Amino acid sequence: MLQGHQTWVYESKPVIIGTAAIGGPFESQGGLAADFDMFHDDLWLGENSFEKAEKKLLEEACETAIKKAGLKKEDVQFFLSGDLINQIIASSFAARTLGIPYLGLYGACSSSMEGLALASLIVDSKFAVNALAATSSHNAAAEKQYRYPTEYGAQKPPTAQWTVTGAGAAVVSQQGEGPKVTSATIGRVVDMGLSDPFNMGAAMAPAAVDTIEAHFRDLNIDASQYDLIATGDLGRIGHRIAGDLLKKHGIDIPEEKFTDCGILMYRSDQPVFAGASGCACAATATYGHFINRMKRGELKKILIVATGALLSPMSYQQKESIPCIAHAVSIEM
Amino acid sequence: MLQGHQTWVYESKPVIIGTAAIGGPFESQGGLAADFDMFHDDLWLGENSFEKAEKKLLEEACETAIKKAGLKKEDVQFFLSGDLINQIIASSFAARTLGIPYLGLYGACSSSMEGLALASLIVDSKFAVNALAATSSHNAAAEKQYRYPTEYGAQKPPTAQWTVTGAGAAVVSQQGEGPKVTSATIGRVVDMGLSDPFNMGAAMAPAAVDTIEAHFRDLNIDASQYDLIATGDLGRIGHRIAGDLLKKHGIDIPEEKFTDCGILMYRSDQPVFAGASGCACAATATYGHFINRMKRGELKKILIVATGALLSPMSYQQKESIPCIAHAVSIEM
Repeated sequence: MLQGHQTWVYESKPVIIGTAAIGGPFESQGGLAADFDMFHDDLWLGENSFEKAEKKLLEEACETAIKKAGLKKEDVQFFLSGDLINQIIASSFAARTLGIPYLGLYGACSSSMEGLALASLIVDSKFAVNALAATSSHNAAAEKQYRYPTEYGAQKPPTAQWTVTGAGAAVVSQQGEGPKVTSATIGRVVDMGLSDPFNMGAAMAPAAVDTIEAHFRDLNIDASQYDLIATGDLGRIGHRIAGDLLKKHGIDIPEEKFTDCGILMYRSDQPVFAGASGCACAATATYGHFINRMKRGELKKILIVATGALLSPMSYQQKESIPCIAHAVSIEM
Repeated sequence: MLQGHQTWVYESKPVIIGTAAIGGPFESQGGLAADFDMFHDDLWLGENSFEKAEKKLLEEACETAIKKAGLKKEDVQFFLSGDLINQIIASSFAARTLGIPYLGLYGACSSSMEGLALASLIVDSKFAVNALAATSSHNAAAEKQYRYPTEYGAQKPPTAQWTVTGAGAAVVSQQGEGPKVTSATIGRVVDMGLSDPFNMGAAMAPAAVDTIEAHFRDLNIDASQYDLIATGDLGRIGHRIAGDLLKKHGIDIPEEKFTDCGILMYRSDQPVFAGASGCACAATATYGHFINRMKRGELKKILIVATGALLSPMSYQQKESIPCIAHAVSIEM
């Protein structure tokens, strides 16, 4: 362990033995739809609030991942989860339903990989046989809280992104069949002074670059180690900026290897501005699409760099810029 | 590792090599004032918002703890923090100032021990030489967000509690002088159906009892192992309920050993209703008062059971009851 070293290498290589991706009506029309486990055609999921609908998405993702792992919830020792709703109530209320000892996290849209990194640490330390990492977001709940209720029909600039309605979950285990978690790089907060909440991809891009750089430096590797490196939810604008920044820093990631969950999530004819965002973006893309591609043998080693914009409506109103972060987790088949 | 086991025993016994407790004007009149490192006589700390004041408290606690540990911030590999403000902006903006790789947490007022448990896990796993766990709360920021701005002068019932203005931080290390972190019990969410946000001590008491019970069961010990067992912020009403519940469950903790940070924080002539609360309550009591008592040889083994009410103003408005949690950490001199 060197000073300045921010990457954890899991000696035991915890196994992802079950995953789930649940989506809403809009996601069922998206580019990654084939890899979701389930869709809802009702944005309310039969609940009387969007927040309760999000909690239900999260619970379903957890239950599905546990079931696909061949386990019962009693077999899972710890539940790590976070979401975008104030006081992460989707996660905490889902934790009440599950009854599993619970660690609440908040890393905005980086929460998926923060959870997977910590769950893998707990399993690697032999403090759990099985740990569950999950996260969720809901388009209408997020719009209501961060901007305007969707019913207002407020207009958006082309740099805006579309919050994914969905939830993703993964069961990490000491043993079993599946892709293995090999390392995680915990990000620093990077803030380049951008303050436009309608252009979060641009704000988050430097954080993604900082974490990718740290990951390569700590492990003394380069992009050739990976078949695919995916940022979380930079969208089209942020992803291009990240690519440019990497080049400037002398880091070469071939274009065909470098992608973004926020670009992949929706089809080009869906009106999502610069792409997708939300905690569920990287979570469903990873636990649905990428894990499936690994299982089909199309990908062997991937690095997921989940990005988070750590602002709040109040920090924006108080004229603060947007602190951003990215956590990276490497997964190997 | 047994199924159902929710306690981590740290083989390497990570050392708390530096701590800090910072408080506001009201805390400087309180029962634990002698053990704080610094007080502010201005609730605004010279900032133009209470949220920015809270961020400053947190930064000061972190910087003081790092300094008292004899380190520079470059020597600390990971920063774990959470607070009560929406999207934990106090923590995330402090992480920006510190520049240390950051894991954001949310466990309401249980965040202090959630952070200490995870920081100790990271150090115990040899993934860090030094890790920093911190948390903060600010009375006026919390009142404004959860209830009414303090300027309104809204009345409160006697079951209400007073959010501590302050911050606490601890540097956990692989080596050095100081109290050692020996184990941590991660709590489950417990919700007995209470929904009164002006009586959170009563709502949280069953969660504290559940975690204490799990701690004793997992380690096959009883209260005789400890010189002191302190709940986080149950206050006078919640603490009495916890005592009654423990007796009902056949768990005997002698009265002179069983205390609550929310009762100790203020003097009986301070108008704080049922006692103190807030993330900073357990944090400042532990990192100031209890650690000092350990260093003076008055206490050898303590168990801190930080309690959290995982509600939000919205979950309350949506008529939900209050999910509660408690995380316990044992510390030995």
